[in-house]
Parts: sequence; C-alpha cells; structure tokens
Amino acid sequence: MLIYYGYTEKAAEYLLTRNLKPGDRVVLKLRDGSILRGILLPRPELYSTSNIINIKLSNGYNVGIDISKIESIEKEEVAVTVEHGLIETTMEKKQQGNLPRVTMLSTGGTIASKVDYSTGAVTPALKPEEIIEWIPELTDIAVVNTREIMSIFSEDMNPKLWEKIAEEVYRELTSGVSGVVVAHGTDTMSYTASALAFGISNKSAPIVFVGSQRSSDRPSTDAVFNLISAFIVASKAPFAESVIAMHRDISDEYNAVHRGVKARKMHTSRRDAFQSINDKPLAIVNPLTHELKVIGKIYEYRGEKQPVLKARFDDKVALIKVYPGLQGEIIDFLVDKGYHGIVLEGTGLGHASNSLLNTIKRAVENGIPVVMTSQCLFGHVNMNVYSTGRRYLEAGVIPGRDILPEVAYVKLSWILGSITRDLDEVRKLFELNLVGEFNDRHTLDLYPRWYYE
Amino acid sequence: MLIYYGYTEKAAEYLLTRNLKPGDRVVLKLRDGSILRGILLPRPELYSTSNIINIKLSNGYNVGIDISKIESIEKEEVAVTVEHGLIETTMEKKQQGNLPRVTMLSTGGTIASKVDYSTGAVTPALKPEEIIEWIPELTDIAVVNTREIMSIFSEDMNPKLWEKIAEEVYRELTSGVSGVVVAHGTDTMSYTASALAFGISNKSAPIVFVGSQRSSDRPSTDAVFNLISAFIVASKAPFAESVIAMHRDISDEYNAVHRGVKARKMHTSRRDAFQSINDKPLAIVNPLTHELKVIGKIYEYRGEKQPVLKARFDDKVALIKVYPGLQGEIIDFLVDKGYHGIVLEGTGLGHASNSLLNTIKRAVENGIPVVMTSQCLFGHVNMNVYSTGRRYLEAGVIPGRDILPEVAYVKLSWILGSITRDLDEVRKLFELNLVGEFNDRHTLDLYPRWYYE
Repeated sequence: MLIYYGYTEKAAEYLLTRNLKPGDRVVLKLRDGSILRGILLPRPELYSTSNIINIKLSNGYNVGIDISKIESIEKEEVAVTVEHGLIETTMEKKQQGNLPRVTMLSTGGTIASKVDYSTGAVTPALKPEEIIEWIPELTDIAVVNTREIMSIFSEDMNPKLWEKIAEEVYRELTSGVSGVVVAHGTDTMSYTASALAFGISNKSAPIVFVGSQRSSDRPSTDAVFNLISAFIVASKAPFAESVIAMHRDISDEYNAVHRGVKARKMHTSRRDAFQSINDKPLAIVNPLTHELKVIGKIYEYRGEKQPVLKARFDDKVALIKVYPGLQGEIIDFLVDKGYHGIVLEGTGLGHASNSLLNTIKRAVENGIPVVMTSQCLFGHVNMNVYSTGRRYLEAGVIPGRDILPEVAYVKLSWILGSITRDLDEVRKLFELNLVGEFNDRHTLDLYPRWYYE
Repeated sequence: MLIYYGYTEKAAEYLLTRNLKPGDRVVLKLRDGSILRGILLPRPELYSTSNIINIKLSNGYNVGIDISKIESIEKEEVAVTVEHGLIETTMEKKQQGNLPRVTMLSTGGTIASKVDYSTGAVTPALKPEEIIEWIPELTDIAVVNTREIMSIFSEDMNPKLWEKIAEEVYRELTSGVSGVVVAHGTDTMSYTASALAFGISNKSAPIVFVGSQRSSDRPSTDAVFNLISAFIVASKAPFAESVIAMHRDISDEYNAVHRGVKARKMHTSRRDAFQSINDKPLAIVNPLTHELKVIGKIYEYRGEKQPVLKARFDDKVALIKVYPGLQGEIIDFLVDKGYHGIVLEGTGLGHASNSLLNTIKRAVENGIPVVMTSQCLFGHVNMNVYSTGRRYLEAGVIPGRDILPEVAYVKLSWILGSITRDLDEVRKLFELNLVGEFNDRHTLDLYPRWYYE
C-alpha cells in the first residue's frame, strides 16, 4: 500500500504526482467553480482509505476535499520547508541517529487507538512502526521508540497505575533519553501528569503527556498535531517537568504546553479542553514549523541529572466536594474506615459549613490531614478573611493556596504514600511548593475572557 | 450627619458645594501637578468617614483621591443626567410611588453587612432606610422595601434554608411586586439561585440574587454597582427567572445577569467571579445609565401570572466527585444509609471507573437515581461515545447533558423533595428542561478565551 504523509492510495498518488507536501500553501480550483486557498495538512486519520485531502483555510477552519471535485491544484509558495521521504509498505525512512532519542509510552486512551475503517472496530494500541508511518514528521524530530505499558481508558486509571507509569518513565529517563512522551486518555490525564510531577524528582528531561479529543463526526482528529508537538517538547524543551501538550485553541496552529500540576480538562469535547488554571502555560509549540516558544516560568530545567523515583501513592485518600447539605456522616465514615487523608473542595475562599466543623476537628484529632481547596478553581484559598475560614484553620485544616482540588488530592496521596503519615510532617510538606503546584503571584490575565457580544 | 451619595462630612460637603454628582465627567488637577480625567463614582463604602472621592479613570481603573490633594476639580460634560436630592441625617428623599415596587430580602453574606469604621466590627444586616441612604440612586429605580429573613454566611446555607427563602420570595411575588432582590453570600449563591428557579414556577417577575466580593484591602467594594444593577433588573427586566447580577468584568462599567441554573462562582475573590457556563448570560446592565440589554435567550417572561410554590428539598442527596482511586465503599455507604439520590461529578464526557460499575448498579437497583455530570464543567455529557459511558447508561445512570454538577444536585434534591421518589418518574423529570438548566446548542463562544501572550 502506498502511504504518503498518512494519505493512502488515490489521495497519496494524487499528491505525490503533483509533488505536494503537508505545509505547502495551495490554491484549489474546484469543479463547481469555487476557489480555495490554504495549507495542505497531513491526513489526520490513520490510513484512511478515502480520497479526501485536508486543507487548512486561512480563516482557521480545516476542510476535507474529495480529489474528484478538484479541477486543479497549485502550489502558491512554500510556507514550511520540510523534507520527507516516500513511504512504501514497510518503513523505508531511516531513523536519523543524530537526533534526540524520545520514547513514547502508551497507556491507552483515544490517542493510542486506531480505527479499522473496514470494520469500525478500535484496535487498542499503536506500534512504533505504525506511528511513524502515520506521522513521518516524527522522524525529523527524534529517534522514536515506543512501548505499550498498559492499555486502558483513563477513567480506569488509579494510584497503583500511576506507580507503574512512574517506574516506566523513570527507567526511560535514567536510560538517557532526551524526553518521554506518555500517550494517555484525556479524562484523568492531569491527575497522572501531577502524579509524575511528584513521583519523580530531579528530572533530567521533560515528561510530556499527550492525548486526543477526536470525535468520529469531525473531519479531522487532533492526534497528529498533538503528537508532533509532544515529540518537539520531549526532544528539545528546556524544562524538565511533567507537562501536558494539547491544542491551544480550536485552530490547528499552536499546541499549548501546560505544567501538569496547573492544568485541567475544562471541556468535555473541545480539542482545546486542557488549559492552565492559576498559572501561565509553560510554552506554545507550532507543529508545522517545529518552533517552541517558552511563555511561562520554568520550575525545573533539563540537565544531566540523576532522577529520583519516589512514587508510592496512598489510595486511602478522599477528595470530597463541599455543597449545601453535605452531611458530616460522610466525613465520619472516612475517619471510621481508616482513611489517611482528606481533600475538601470547599466553597469560595476555602469554606465549608460551620455545621461540619466538629466532624473535621475529629478527623484532624485522629491524625488525618485535611486540605482545603476551592471549587471556584480560579484564585487563592484565603481562610483568614472570614470567621468560618479562621475556625477551620484553628481546627487544623491545611489551606491549599491556589492549588487545584485534583492536584491537592494527588499531592496528599503522594506525601502519604511516599514520604510520611506524620500529621506535622505532612502539613510542612504540603505547604512547600515542590514542583510549581502553587503560584502565589496571580496576574489579571490568568482569568480567561468571557464573551458578552 | 451629612450624607451625599454615600459620601459623608468633608467629602460630601466638597462635592455638594461644587455641585458634582456621581456620573459627572470630571477633570482633576492635583497639587502634585498631575491631571486626572474620569467619572465621579458614588462612594462605595457605606458611610466611610474618609475624605476620599472615587474616580473611574478612562482606562477602567477606579482610584480614590484624597480631597486635600486636589487643587481643582471641574465638570467636563454631563455624562449621565440623574437627579438626586440631598440627604440629611434622616431620609428626606421621598420614595416615588409611581415607580415599580421591589423588595430586597436579605439572607446575610458580605453584601448585607456594614462595617463600623470606628471599631472595625461587622454589623450583620442593612435596614431599608440604611440601604437607601447609602445608595440614593435606588429610589430612582424603585419603591424599595427590604426585609432581613436570615443572617448567615452562605457557606452555612442548606436545603432547609432554601425552602424558607423560596417561601419568602413567593410571598413577595404574590403580593404583586415588580421583582425581588435577594442579597446573599457569594459562596453558595448559585446553588440557592438554582433552588429558587426550581422551587417557584410560573414566575411573575425576576428573582435577582446579588452579592459582593469586596475585600477590605481594595479601595472600592462592588456592592454599590451590584445592588443598583440588581434593582434595575428586578424592576424592569422582561424575564421572570431566578438570576444572579454581579460584575461582568473587573471594570465598574457593566454588570452581567446570569441565569441561576447556568451560573457558577469561578474565582475566589474577583468581582467578576460569577460567569455563565454553557450558556450566554441573560443580560448586561449599566448601573450608571440604567440601561438593561438582553443578550441571551429568555426562558420565562415577566407577566401577570400566579406563581406556584413547590419548594421542598431532599437533604438525603449526595454530590460525589469522581477521581482516580475513588472507592466504591463511599457509594455503598450512601446506599446503606438510605440516601435518596446521588449526583456524580464524573470525568470527561461522563465517565467513572469501570471498577465502580457494580456499586452504581446496586444503587440504581435500590431505587436510587444516579445522575452523571462532568467535572470539566464546559461541554455536554455524552455517554454514547465510549464503552464505559454506555455501560453506565445500561446500569441506569441518568446522563446530565450540559448541566452543572451543582445544579444537577439542586435539581435532584428538588425533584425528590417536591415531586416524586419514583425512579422512573425522577428519570423523566430529570430529562426535562424545566427552567433552562439544559442548553443543547453550544456555540463556540461559550468557552472563554485564555491568554497566551
């Protein structure tokens, strides 16, 4: 089978004979008389057998055009110069040994799946040669190695699996790779990215989580752009942090790189679902030009370092959302069941009903650390403003500053599992900014702009 | 004591003798030689005895200027023509009988408090004559009546108190007022606004929740602008819904009016903390010009209607956040304790770990409705995309469409308390869009813009 930038058969031949490559600026004249201008994109769907080529129009939208409807197509000007080989049945493109080595660990999720278009079935994982055939650009970025370490949807992720992922990533980092890409389902990606942030310290290179929000009714998946971006970040970013690389917005122009402990999935389906909360994103990446621009504050730099693995996570920790009517008996149950830690997703500046105060006191008196975060998500917890907050502080609750509830949960699980269960020690560790999970300086532009037009 | 637009003593006299009123465009020459241009604002702090006047600069910032530092102040041009009387010690301004009648019910919270500047103590509530002395503009908008129905911080709100508020609001609506303003703490304001949306149907007039995010270290509170806006909405908005009126952004230009069931407190401290999620705001209001502009889709119109009170809320409902490692024993505990309903704040498109599937099945088999929402907040739940979602649907979980987790909790509590506990009936009612809690048509501009510069 002829494969050319993910295009196959007729579409591949069509582009190949016209010497057109992804990144080329093209003018199409269609048989219905319309004229389209845009940039040719790589075929986003893996081995699609359709006769459609994908064009990114100047207004940002991507359209798929059936080649039978094209009267003529011409190159306007070369927007990006990239050199790729033609790929026949087996991988002919040599991996270039002088490039950085990047390992992709596949854990499952939408991004690690491929669709068999004849049956509609989803095959669980991509093999190294498959991903390179699909996205030949990757071999211009790195010497690619991939391993499947598990194959699950991310809603089934749990603290024990975080430990396995941490061990595998650690193994790669100590083997001297320039970066690790972790393909992961998006549902709980920010939890796992946070777990890796805490579980491996003194990181030598970036750990880049990447996923895909594709839905089958869209003409294009976001996986190609996200994967290219993830490999760019893994191979050359100056930071050595656990990050998430996903679409910056709904165009296919830039990917955003978020610090894992400051990122959150904020939309159920949009490709730009992941956004940084209470901190600037670390970087933006252009997957066509391979440009990586750091826009945030780096917490840990890449370097010749010996990573340290401390990645045990306590699964007797609960994340409890506070709401009007929350009954103390739920907290009491956790205490009675011997839970080791509780994170509250409180209201406003870090509040819960005064009716729960004694229940929380009892938990703390039982040696259980209780951390307060805010369901507002944006802004700092400040428990000194109102009397309720002060009462909870007096009861021994640990204020979570501007940490996300989900990240507080991961951090507490990590402290209790990997370091200590002594309440005073836990408190001290929780109040330390270990991997950039706290940001004390909020600028006005950390809150997004809402539309009112 | 001389009170003039909330200014007192020297500042009041200073403005009065110069015939300057809030809304006037002024040019100030300061003793240090600087020149400021802006709009004179009402004194935001209640009965502040300071000699500071507040100016809104053209760049949107508000500054407080000590009158001793002003060399000269001149009116540039009348931006807004409003006619107010001078208020001496007691209320002299007559309430104008031909204006709409609006009742403000005070439940507590920051907005209903006043600070005694000599002692620093916070007095719990505003009396009608005090609020009118503080904000004389209100008497241009409505004949104002206020009642304190409780005095608590909103973190202490609970379903039983929602019932009391609903009864009091119902009483006002049936007495024929043009609108009801509910002063409420911001922490759980959107929960209560949702409770009122469901608890009173066939509404004749708007129910307008209003609060304040003031923090003592800021030169101005947001209470004045929010209260004026709330009264404008209550007196003349064409919709008869339970809404929230708070700052649109951090300038003092517009207030936004959000449908209660689509609003959420998204920031712990910013004045524009409340934003609409998955729907357009209903309206914007300019508290200086009194202009109210409808920008969203109205669900229920104002009219000569007989409101219906059905406002019992079941407090045996739990809102459970889903996270990696959530143990089934917490759900089992709720079932064993005889809870009547559970709302899950799931991941992504509406997922939870497959390891929890049997636990959830057991809950449903026990006749307990389980509703699935998403912790992404933005976007629709769609449980048909992945096998996990389909399995939960088969287990009998009710998909929550694009409803906010908090609103799903209130709706379920209301259905179980006011209508039925029959599982099939609950399911049917939950799937009905009763007060605009669902929005099936999402446009791209419902997701805010994030800063990357």
